[in-house]
Amino acid sequence: MDKGEGHRRAVIEGVRPEIDGGRFPIKRVVGEKVTVEADIFADGHDALSALLRYRRENASHWTEVPMEFLVNDRWRASFIVTELGRYRYTLTAWVDHFKSWRRDLAKKVQASQQASADLLVGAGLITDAASRAFAPDAQTLKEWADVLQSKKVPEEEKIQLALSDELLELMDRYPDRQFATDYPMELEVVVDREKAGFSAWYEMFPRSCVAEEGRHATFKDCQARLPYIAGMGFDVLYFPPIHPIGHTNRKGKNNALKAGPRDPGTPWAIGSEEGGHKAINPQLGTLDDFRELLRKAKEHNIEIALDIAFQCSPDHPYVKEHPEWFRHRPDGSIQYAENPPKKYEDIYPLNFDSERWPELWDELKSVFLFWLEQGVRIFRVDNPHTKPFAFWEWVITELRDEYPDVIFLSEAFTRPKVMYRLAKLGFTQSYTYFAWRNTKWEFTQYFTELTRTEVREFFRPSLWTNTPDILTEYLQVGGRPAFMARLVLAATLGANYGIYGPAFELMENRPRQPGSEEYLNSEKYEIKHWDIDRPDSLRHFISRVNKIRRENPALQRNDNLCFHNVDNDELICYSKHTDDLNNIILVVVNLHHTYTHSGWVELPLGDLGLSAQEPYQVHDLLSDARYVWHGPRNYVELNPHSSPAHIFRIHRRLRTERDFDYYM
Amino acid sequence: MDKGEGHRRAVIEGVRPEIDGGRFPIKRVVGEKVTVEADIFADGHDALSALLRYRRENASHWTEVPMEFLVNDRWRASFIVTELGRYRYTLTAWVDHFKSWRRDLAKKVQASQQASADLLVGAGLITDAASRAFAPDAQTLKEWADVLQSKKVPEEEKIQLALSDELLELMDRYPDRQFATDYPMELEVVVDREKAGFSAWYEMFPRSCVAEEGRHATFKDCQARLPYIAGMGFDVLYFPPIHPIGHTNRKGKNNALKAGPRDPGTPWAIGSEEGGHKAINPQLGTLDDFRELLRKAKEHNIEIALDIAFQCSPDHPYVKEHPEWFRHRPDGSIQYAENPPKKYEDIYPLNFDSERWPELWDELKSVFLFWLEQGVRIFRVDNPHTKPFAFWEWVITELRDEYPDVIFLSEAFTRPKVMYRLAKLGFTQSYTYFAWRNTKWEFTQYFTELTRTEVREFFRPSLWTNTPDILTEYLQVGGRPAFMARLVLAATLGANYGIYGPAFELMENRPRQPGSEEYLNSEKYEIKHWDIDRPDSLRHFISRVNKIRRENPALQRNDNLCFHNVDNDELICYSKHTDDLNNIILVVVNLHHTYTHSGWVELPLGDLGLSAQEPYQVHDLLSDARYVWHGPRNYVELNPHSSPAHIFRIHRRLRTERDFDYYM
Repeated sequence: MDKGEGHRRAVIEGVRPEIDGGRFPIKRVVGEKVTVEADIFADGHDALSALLRYRRENASHWTEVPMEFLVNDRWRASFIVTELGRYRYTLTAWVDHFKSWRRDLAKKVQASQQASADLLVGAGLITDAASRAFAPDAQTLKEWADVLQSKKVPEEEKIQLALSDELLELMDRYPDRQFATDYPMELEVVVDREKAGFSAWYEMFPRSCVAEEGRHATFKDCQARLPYIAGMGFDVLYFPPIHPIGHTNRKGKNNALKAGPRDPGTPWAIGSEEGGHKAINPQLGTLDDFRELLRKAKEHNIEIALDIAFQCSPDHPYVKEHPEWFRHRPDGSIQYAENPPKKYEDIYPLNFDSERWPELWDELKSVFLFWLEQGVRIFRVDNPHTKPFAFWEWVITELRDEYPDVIFLSEAFTRPKVMYRLAKLGFTQSYTYFAWRNTKWEFTQYFTELTRTEVREFFRPSLWTNTPDILTEYLQVGGRPAFMARLVLAATLGANYGIYGPAFELMENRPRQPGSEEYLNSEKYEIKHWDIDRPDSLRHFISRVNKIRRENPALQRNDNLCFHNVDNDELICYSKHTDDLNNIILVVVNLHHTYTHSGWVELPLGDLGLSAQEPYQVHDLLSDARYVWHGPRNYVELNPHSSPAHIFRIHRRLRTERDFDYYM
Repeated sequence: MDKGEGHRRAVIEGVRPEIDGGRFPIKRVVGEKVTVEADIFADGHDALSALLRYRRENASHWTEVPMEFLVNDRWRASFIVTELGRYRYTLTAWVDHFKSWRRDLAKKVQASQQASADLLVGAGLITDAASRAFAPDAQTLKEWADVLQSKKVPEEEKIQLALSDELLELMDRYPDRQFATDYPMELEVVVDREKAGFSAWYEMFPRSCVAEEGRHATFKDCQARLPYIAGMGFDVLYFPPIHPIGHTNRKGKNNALKAGPRDPGTPWAIGSEEGGHKAINPQLGTLDDFRELLRKAKEHNIEIALDIAFQCSPDHPYVKEHPEWFRHRPDGSIQYAENPPKKYEDIYPLNFDSERWPELWDELKSVFLFWLEQGVRIFRVDNPHTKPFAFWEWVITELRDEYPDVIFLSEAFTRPKVMYRLAKLGFTQSYTYFAWRNTKWEFTQYFTELTRTEVREFFRPSLWTNTPDILTEYLQVGGRPAFMARLVLAATLGANYGIYGPAFELMENRPRQPGSEEYLNSEKYEIKHWDIDRPDSLRHFISRVNKIRRENPALQRNDNLCFHNVDNDELICYSKHTDDLNNIILVVVNLHHTYTHSGWVELPLGDLGLSAQEPYQVHDLLSDARYVWHGPRNYVELNPHSSPAHIFRIHRRLRTERDFDYYM
């Protein structure tokens, strides 16, 4: 072993955030803060200085922020990311002889000990700094060094100068970093636009957006539906695949093995003689119609998200043009999708083990590029966990380099480590297990993992109340209160959430069969004609909840989620607040869809800036009711049939007689 | 971004143990197991295979162990380290097409689906394996592939072969590892001898080991003391520095600023005209006497540990020969040690910031080498945290390369992260905060951190009841019960522990002044003449405790420590057991030195192999009393004045009438 750089005495370790030893970037949106902590120490008792250094990925210059000592050798500093793209950060630290000297001198002065030799030592350190400094600082430092060495200046005056803030400040500007320890890694931050961190999604089958029975809707019909969607407060409109649908082995209603002649097929059986992943199903309209829809949506502050499902119907052009991208059976036929004993004869999976995988990857990248060129910036990716991890890391990095505002939502309902890996590789948002979490204990466990551990640095949860594949038992049996409760939970537990409508707002809850999470007469296999004007629709409730989200910045992030105790397991309570405590939202949900439940909510008053002595007001933004609360424990009661939830805004201060002039 | 090796689909992450991303080795002793876990997964639903690979550091060949799937994508495998020195381990994993095929075939067969195409696919996989296999396996595989393709063999028979264990076993021998993912790091294990993991230390000032007043004892006197030390069951005898002691600014009794003419000085003020760190204080004897002592000690199964304190008295030869290794003040004098406002004028610290640090490092290394050449293999290093981390990593690695049986104990009573860093850098054992832990909560917290977290992989705690610098308040006030309780705690909570005697066994408890942890008339500054034959000595109790440690392998490690609930905060209860449960030790200590305390101990019967239905016996190895216990909750009561602790051995089974022949 060689001696290395044995005079570099500072150690930097335990850096957070740092994902898998720096292998993966953390995520932020523009304007957010990156707070970095590390254990920084050296041998002995010398004082240390440390800097957090950061830069945009391709900038040549590092910006440096002094780190602050916390406790137990832990140091911290922060910076704000202001631009889309990638940032890097790293750390440097060194033994600071001037600071050690200053600290020890102060102690000796305190103990009335001799300090003349120390003043000379200090003069030496200041002279050294002068040689590193620019004029006029260099001149000032030289003069001060002279003062400390002068026989004419009284010692008291020298000590005053030696311990002055002015000297410290100037010395801090020219530290001796010759033997500084640089953290050996540059860690990365991917910076997304704001919608990556805060969005409300509405999933809709474009072919079903007319009320007249029997007609296949078009993009023009979708235009007419935009005010309805915008009125509910959604800002992302997500379409299942809009491409031509295969004929071979097409599935009929309720996933029947044989389709009838008028059955439209599932949009996920992508490709026919009319084209594949870059084509539009002619029944929906033309590419121009689609671009027109994008423009109109924008006028309503809605972005269209497309579904990218990398799989083919047997009629997809790839099958003829690139048979080498599919798996072949010994008889020469192409292997359809299967998960024994289940078979999906209308779908051919792509074979990423193909020897021609590099060309396949390029083609799939070009699919994204095609839609990016049309103006699409949000993609919901279907089953990414059945394609290689390396593909996603490559394609997302490539696309983001060109389009740093692109957003990818990972639809991977699979094992937790696989979901997390996909997020680490680059997916901007990720579906979660939210739909299957029902009890207070489950919510608390899961959302603590998502928001209070390292996971929050790379995994942005997207909470869905339902999807075309997921009609949970809770919604099947719970009726209107269940739909309302799940909406509030999704919209307030998660800064990103979504519903599949109009099934959701119309409270569609019939399963194909008992025990199934599939919808009866699922829209996946047939065109539906929803009556969106039904008087019992939840659209106004949804509209209210989305308005609350927009008006309350506390609900626009996840890292501030905090659960609170209620002495009733059917009531869940949590809060979110802004750093400045100007916006505090407290949510209480009755998880039971039938019975009224009540209990005592316990709040950590200090954390919320509340005083135990003074009353405060909680304002239910759903019902507009206001209550005066006092102290840490307060009573709540929720009848699910009137409203299964409170979304309180907490007002910290009530007016009292002291607010009036005459009180003085 | 380039596409990399996009067909390598397996991912390996979350590898444990892995210290700081592989920067530091883990520690084991010869014969111990290294159990490695990792998250291993791939996209999609394919089956995986994974191997743990290990080798001695310089071996060219890896040994491979198949990893076992646990749950939630977690895999595990183990190996035993059998030789001193360094090992490396790493992992490899791949998508196993044969295993996927076999699994899916089984499902299809189960569902009575067509399998003939699948059998042909399988034949292809087997043929490929045959091309990788050696004769006669290659021949067998070829024949089996033929069977699966044969039109003459009935399908049933083919399926039987396809799903047979014989085929699986043979295929497992020749997997297709072409696209295997190798974990990018080779992780290290440092393997020490057994004493690194299990040792009982006795610290003694050699100059004080005669009872006659006024005489400076010698190494020959130490020889005479060996049977006493061995009789108590200690296997390491540690001496404070044995080198010549400086005259300049020598400290007198009780750390007086001026020494009297007969004051011997503190052994840590190293060096005089009679020599430095490679010399022996002539009052103790010669180098030959020392070697003779080493030999005699060995006959008693005792190893001598030396104290390495890298600091100099003003009279040390280095001061004249290498003034450049010290810090100079502006007036040209050498800077003595200080921690303002405290001054240590009898000590000159070495200046590791010296420009001549490489030569300094070489010289310090040569100090270790000198004593290694005399036969010393254990060093207690004084204040390692005041010397650069890089020095320790370098010197320990260099010395271990030549002497893999050397043991270094780090005497760093400092901040936790600094202590852990020193352990990571190579120290074999480390002093702990044990002496200052008093309450059940403190013990549980601290020893859970040391034995149940990653810390246990690199930090081997050494628990000291007392040292010449540390006479805790508990010992000052608690009398005999306190000494007994602390001995039991140290000896059973830690596989490595030590006492400073004869102060400990003679229950010396007078502090220099109230509030101080220094001994009154401390042996650091004067020669003591202990009456080791005093009838109240704890020597026989210590002897019993050390015997229990030697006879019970459960007490010879730390990673098996488990705390149990007792409904009394003054009673602490914990167990240690061997993996095979043949040796189970249960310790209960009354932490209060005055009052009798009682309570109900709760044991996790299942973990200890005990049945809730059958009684079991607990045998107190201290008092030899036996009790029959039943179920998870049992009563204990400890009067500190008779015995403040139980060290139970649990006997899982009692004889019953069923053990007699006539019962049948």
